[in-house]
Amino acid sequence: MQGSNCWVTGKMAPEPVNVREFQQLAREALPKMYYDFYAGGAEDEFSLKENMEAFRRITLRPRVLVDVSRINMSTTLLGYRISAPIMIAPTAMHMLAHPEAKAAAACNTIMILSFMSTCTVEEVSLSCSAVRFFQLYVYKKRDVTAALVDRAERLGYKALVLTADVPRLGRREADIRNKMISPKLKNFDGLFSAEHESGNGSGLEAYANLTLDASLQWKDMAWLKSITNLPILIKGILTGEDAIKAVEVGVAGIVVSNHGARQLDYSPATISVLEEVVHATKGKIPVLLDGGVRRGTDVFKALALGAQAVLVGRPVIYGLAAKGEAGVTQVIETLKTELELTMALSGCPNLKDITRSHVKTERDRPHSML
Amino acid sequence: MQGSNCWVTGKMAPEPVNVREFQQLAREALPKMYYDFYAGGAEDEFSLKENMEAFRRITLRPRVLVDVSRINMSTTLLGYRISAPIMIAPTAMHMLAHPEAKAAAACNTIMILSFMSTCTVEEVSLSCSAVRFFQLYVYKKRDVTAALVDRAERLGYKALVLTADVPRLGRREADIRNKMISPKLKNFDGLFSAEHESGNGSGLEAYANLTLDASLQWKDMAWLKSITNLPILIKGILTGEDAIKAVEVGVAGIVVSNHGARQLDYSPATISVLEEVVHATKGKIPVLLDGGVRRGTDVFKALALGAQAVLVGRPVIYGLAAKGEAGVTQVIETLKTELELTMALSGCPNLKDITRSHVKTERDRPHSML
Amino acid sequence: MQGSNCWVTGKMAPEPVNVREFQQLAREALPKMYYDFYAGGAEDEFSLKENMEAFRRITLRPRVLVDVSRINMSTTLLGYRISAPIMIAPTAMHMLAHPEAKAAAACNTIMILSFMSTCTVEEVSLSCSAVRFFQLYVYKKRDVTAALVDRAERLGYKALVLTADVPRLGRREADIRNKMISPKLKNFDGLFSAEHESGNGSGLEAYANLTLDASLQWKDMAWLKSITNLPILIKGILTGEDAIKAVEVGVAGIVVSNHGARQLDYSPATISVLEEVVHATKGKIPVLLDGGVRRGTDVFKALALGAQAVLVGRPVIYGLAAKGEAGVTQVIETLKTELELTMALSGCPNLKDITRSHVKTERDRPHSML
Amino acid sequence: MQGSNCWVTGKMAPEPVNVREFQQLAREALPKMYYDFYAGGAEDEFSLKENMEAFRRITLRPRVLVDVSRINMSTTLLGYRISAPIMIAPTAMHMLAHPEAKAAAACNTIMILSFMSTCTVEEVSLSCSAVRFFQLYVYKKRDVTAALVDRAERLGYKALVLTADVPRLGRREADIRNKMISPKLKNFDGLFSAEHESGNGSGLEAYANLTLDASLQWKDMAWLKSITNLPILIKGILTGEDAIKAVEVGVAGIVVSNHGARQLDYSPATISVLEEVVHATKGKIPVLLDGGVRRGTDVFKALALGAQAVLVGRPVIYGLAAKGEAGVTQVIETLKTELELTMALSGCPNLKDITRSHVKTERDRPHSML
Repeated sequence: MQGSNCWVTGKMAPEPVNVREFQQLAREALPKMYYDFYAGGAEDEFSLKENMEAFRRITLRPRVLVDVSRINMSTTLLGYRISAPIMIAPTAMHMLAHPEAKAAAACNTIMILSFMSTCTVEEVSLSCSAVRFFQLYVYKKRDVTAALVDRAERLGYKALVLTADVPRLGRREADIRNKMISPKLKNFDGLFSAEHESGNGSGLEAYANLTLDASLQWKDMAWLKSITNLPILIKGILTGEDAIKAVEVGVAGIVVSNHGARQLDYSPATISVLEEVVHATKGKIPVLLDGGVRRGTDVFKALALGAQAVLVGRPVIYGLAAKGEAGVTQVIETLKTELELTMALSGCPNLKDITRSHVKTERDRPHSML
Repeated sequence: MQGSNCWVTGKMAPEPVNVREFQQLAREALPKMYYDFYAGGAEDEFSLKENMEAFRRITLRPRVLVDVSRINMSTTLLGYRISAPIMIAPTAMHMLAHPEAKAAAACNTIMILSFMSTCTVEEVSLSCSAVRFFQLYVYKKRDVTAALVDRAERLGYKALVLTADVPRLGRREADIRNKMISPKLKNFDGLFSAEHESGNGSGLEAYANLTLDASLQWKDMAWLKSITNLPILIKGILTGEDAIKAVEVGVAGIVVSNHGARQLDYSPATISVLEEVVHATKGKIPVLLDGGVRRGTDVFKALALGAQAVLVGRPVIYGLAAKGEAGVTQVIETLKTELELTMALSGCPNLKDITRSHVKTERDRPHSML
Repeated sequence: MQGSNCWVTGKMAPEPVNVREFQQLAREALPKMYYDFYAGGAEDEFSLKENMEAFRRITLRPRVLVDVSRINMSTTLLGYRISAPIMIAPTAMHMLAHPEAKAAAACNTIMILSFMSTCTVEEVSLSCSAVRFFQLYVYKKRDVTAALVDRAERLGYKALVLTADVPRLGRREADIRNKMISPKLKNFDGLFSAEHESGNGSGLEAYANLTLDASLQWKDMAWLKSITNLPILIKGILTGEDAIKAVEVGVAGIVVSNHGARQLDYSPATISVLEEVVHATKGKIPVLLDGGVRRGTDVFKALALGAQAVLVGRPVIYGLAAKGEAGVTQVIETLKTELELTMALSGCPNLKDITRSHVKTERDRPHSML
Repeated sequence: MQGSNCWVTGKMAPEPVNVREFQQLAREALPKMYYDFYAGGAEDEFSLKENMEAFRRITLRPRVLVDVSRINMSTTLLGYRISAPIMIAPTAMHMLAHPEAKAAAACNTIMILSFMSTCTVEEVSLSCSAVRFFQLYVYKKRDVTAALVDRAERLGYKALVLTADVPRLGRREADIRNKMISPKLKNFDGLFSAEHESGNGSGLEAYANLTLDASLQWKDMAWLKSITNLPILIKGILTGEDAIKAVEVGVAGIVVSNHGARQLDYSPATISVLEEVVHATKGKIPVLLDGGVRRGTDVFKALALGAQAVLVGRPVIYGLAAKGEAGVTQVIETLKTELELTMALSGCPNLKDITRSHVKTERDRPHSML
């Protein structure tokens, strides 16, 4: 554990048995400003709750008397094999990307490094052997973005994940009240000096509005493709209309995301629009999902509704805050264990056995009993 | 700030970050009788809660990768340009129409002066350069109403907003319990003496039942049009049936309103019937909405469902009670900032980009997933 | 006030402004065993809550600009004119039928005397000039029932209201726990001695199961009609199927009722099945409703869905317990005032103006916005 | 009462009037580890609550004026007559199968002995004259299962109830936290030694995963049928698809069950899928249900939706914990009393009178008023 990780408590905590208990430990371990930053959402936090509640409204339709003595959760994404359809989402400014990267390697999954990581792309690429993707923001100064894309590509990052839902930073009122200070983002050393004054509000908001290119649009995908050979995924799509456009511009995949409900409040729960997005892509590109995944049953539901895999963001942060690198590994392994059990109890020994008919959504209910 | 504004506290309050926090400050600043009067609704207060809850049940369908570097919120109403589709609703007896009028000017929006203002139409017309409309009640003594219409027209008020939903005053039980005293309404000085005895109940109710013409009906619109050249909007319409009649009698616009849930309890949330009303008008006249607007996302939802603009009543009062004229400006600016952000995060740089497909209502849900 | 009314408090209470506040006063005034008896329902008390909740789920569709300067609430039932469509339901064992009867006269409405009244039919007929109906239970000893029918008819009671939903007494667990004692029922003096032992449970249940004829069936209506010339209403119908049978056997009216949710838990809220029953009767006979009416808006909703009038039971008891005879009058007058206001604010000066299109139920929602 | 029943309190408890009050007494009487084990469910306990909530969302459609002076609740299952359609579900490890078996005899119903009983099949067969079925788990060591089938058949058990929903043990987090110790299962004495180490988690989970055959599949039904002449029911079916397979492999009946919500969280409430399963079987075999039955109305609802009978598990445990053998009898008799009353108040003197039209489910609501 590094010195920079000053907020990770060393005290012996009771052994958490699920992701929510990791969250509880993280709440105890973190200073309020940081816990609020990670756990909070935009404005009324409707979507924050809804991301999880919408999973709860989906029930399972398990089948019995299937041989489930061997459960195989492994899958591939863009040709890379992972041990389970659970990846590590990019989470900005969490100050400890190393343990996360090592945990990704230990869990044999893919990590998406945050563009706004407190470690550099070089540092993270050295610290682990996991397959790494690189999250991208497009800055007003496009040369900053281009330089980072170039560095990431040369360092062996395997794909870019373009964040499409942050033309401006969402209104996170806890951060405004806490006058959240944005930490130093080492990737930009020497490239860029974003002098800003947080003043009375959120330092992050001030920083974001200074740097982010709000004019980024679909036709800029041509520019982005011109500066890299890496496959590009778009993260932040919530409608079938945009999914069609994403396929048209030739992206390699979509992440259905509302940015952890941190951007636009009253955006729909991601699981509630997954099927619409999957339907629009017609199977041409893989669809991932993040937002609200806290249980193996949640992963199972996302897969049944067409996701290739899910990303987990806050759970990783909670694991990290509660127990450091071991906590991240434990969180991922807990979700894998729960998914494996869900597959066994649903009669699905392989991921391909998980079908639409294994879940019942609210949409299905008028036609069935409940 | 005037002496009459005795209930506006001078103490330094924490900086509110949203309208609900202004409400909290107002609750602390106001004597209970007045806070109850402004914040309360009719009978069980079902519609009071529902006005806000119905907004919560509508989710957004944001689009990404649209150039949102410039957001334009300006629109026109009856030919008057305003900086954003957020206007100031008429609110009776709030004792301080001046700061409100000045705030309207500062925010470059339209103010609708209450017929039952504690300031005269003359005073308010002098105090600000904002476009002003004048709210109308029709009294049993029609000459009182006619005299006020004449004064408003000569003073440059640009439209009349006829209140159609108060043939009698609704049953606001807090006011009955508090034996709410109706303040002096200066507009009527010399015109009218409404001697009434509040006795054991609400003074307002006694006053209203003494003065208001409960026989007012659609055909009386001809009389009203005969005494003024101003365009007339009707406020208080909640059904398609009445919207059709409004178009037929030639009004200039409709305000979908349940009078802030102060009149008929169990009347529908305004946002839940907006689309019905808009559909009935077939685009012939503009439709406004009030009731439950507390967030920029609420404004966005109303626009997506066909409103030309929204009116805010209680938020203005809360701003006024919390921080005087500056509070009113701050409340309006907060809503504008939130709307601007919502437009940016929804991929709508202009108001005309906001369409029906940018929201999902309960009506849409059986056909989609959630 | 009579000596038998020992549980009616004399202390000065704050002036109640609605029926729920009368209930609160009654709770304070009554011994727990009696309050539980009146306020409680069967088993889980699902239907008890649902009777009221189902009203809340119905919204109004008010019309404006109608002449509502004169509201006429008067109607007729079986040819008898009443001042408003609000009648007094039969409520067993409330120990004070006199004040209730006098209140019915004062309010110019119909009172249905409980078969299990603690006053005799004779006493009540002497104490007031209101139109009186007589509630009927059929006992195993049919001569008891026949004797009472005969007495009621000779005393000028205008109709019989046959209770159809009590072949056995429902399971009211509060009464079982309280070992509720059934009081002396004076109507049966000399006719009938029901010796029973309440033992460990509810004395009422023991009494009921000893006396009530659980074999009573549709064909017994012929017998009942043979012993009286009075019109017969059936109380306790909750399905269209039974409504059709009621019309076929020639009853004069139906009361949609689940016995105040005191009999079969999980029976539907009466307001939720009213329309089904009204539809089945095809307008041939009047349909009344009881259960959950606490507001003038509730009465309005019942009328909009086809009821000729509503009965109020518990509200009358609460008025009586809180303030004696004056309380009953006040409760009825409060409901009338609220109904009158609802009619005014909905644009319905007469009862016949209240139509199906003035309310929106859950059934209507899939076809409209909310 | 036996010495092993150390957790059954002897103190005088208030007389419980319904099953939930028995649960309250059990909670007071049992050590936390055991109460948690019996009362708890898997993971978030969504299905645990939903099993009961789904019953609450079903309302009754009672008919009146039917002769209900004689209620007959008796029915048959596989040719065995029982006094009411309420049977005793198998519940593992409750340490006192004797009182339960005696209660089954006293109540004239069928008891399904748990495979994982703390008493042997021999002991239970000696202690009572009730019809007994035997619950079956298939172990990796199939000879263990075969030996127990043989013993049960020779001892006069009348049917086997194959548990199909436990290829692995569900994740019951209370047991993990409590480090639940699995007691000695006497049926396996001499047959099988399952040495396992509970270590940091649930001892039951460790035991289960060591022993249970997760490869058991539909074609193994042929093997099972080859080793016994007893009729076989399958317990744990929740979909129409599996119900069809069950009919195809020739089982004698189905138990719709989610294992008391102890296995797969977010599996549907059993009552919510009963109709789907019944429909799929086309009446060829009886369908039973367990999960969430706490009231006579629940039993009635299950019958109306097509169940032949229900099983009660936790209520029996609660009765046992609260009051020993007498408690079990009391619980069963309470449910029978409530069912009898429900039948009387619904106008159904016989079980065959209970039809689909006597209940309204959420599925029915769009087509009716509520």
